[in-house]
Amino acid sequence: MDTTARKRTLRLLSNGLYVITSASGSRFGAATVTWLSQASFRPPLVMAAIRPESNVFACLAESGAVAVHVLDAGQRDIAQRFFAPTKVVGQTINGEPFRAGLTGAPILQSAYAYFECRVRQMVGVGDHTIVVMEVVEAECSRDCLPLTVSASPWSYGG
Amino acid sequence: MDTTARKRTLRLLSNGLYVITSASGSRFGAATVTWLSQASFRPPLVMAAIRPESNVFACLAESGAVAVHVLDAGQRDIAQRFFAPTKVVGQTINGEPFRAGLTGAPILQSAYAYFECRVRQMVGVGDHTIVVMEVVEAECSRDCLPLTVSASPWSYGG
Repeated sequence: MDTTARKRTLRLLSNGLYVITSASGSRFGAATVTWLSQASFRPPLVMAAIRPESNVFACLAESGAVAVHVLDAGQRDIAQRFFAPTKVVGQTINGEPFRAGLTGAPILQSAYAYFECRVRQMVGVGDHTIVVMEVVEAECSRDCLPLTVSASPWSYGG
Repeated sequence: MDTTARKRTLRLLSNGLYVITSASGSRFGAATVTWLSQASFRPPLVMAAIRPESNVFACLAESGAVAVHVLDAGQRDIAQRFFAPTKVVGQTINGEPFRAGLTGAPILQSAYAYFECRVRQMVGVGDHTIVVMEVVEAECSRDCLPLTVSASPWSYGG
């Protein structure tokens, strides 16, 4: 296989940019992720491929609770903020005010839309783990033009 | 949970539109899918949530070989063609000329970019099955502006 062609082709897959958050006791994890898609209508399930060595993975594996925030096209700065290690100061996480959601996962107040999930299954595949999550709460407070990888300065694929 | 808010939020997830194809002996399956993302860099894995009652699922479960075609923004008509049941006439599948790829999966000649995979794992989740596939061949013959669900007249989510 021509690895250049493989990279070029896999970078044509369309993905959004999301901030996922989780908490376990006093530990918090949050990260910008992109390998995420719905996986079932009934029940409503989402699949996300997440690095198992990440802080957010450790939290969601322990607590089983995750929040997924859909970023708006105008919120690149928030995506950027969650490339950095998780840092909670008072009621802010990486500088973003948050509250505890229904599941206990941190909800970013700047999010136009988010949903909360309970982890149902985890499948280790290569250098990521597929986390299968059931959507148990959702809120969409404002119209949103979702931020996509292709409209961002970043890429994650290949 | 407010199911209207759930649907509205889940439809904000960004996805592309792809045609996946598979063959098993003289049986062929092909379908337009959207719940698909990369899942690992090493090895290069892709995850796709596919309806287990579909013809393409039966073929890929038997043969273990799949081709994923990235559609260009100008190829809505091709996406539409693969919403219909699979029909092979001579060397065409749903009206599209094809050849057999490295894995035996049908390769659409109209595709700007495609990759071929070997199925590595299948996980039933709700009303779909997550198929984890390793990319073993890829070709990107022309520059492509990928077709996305949000830029199409269709939706598949909620």
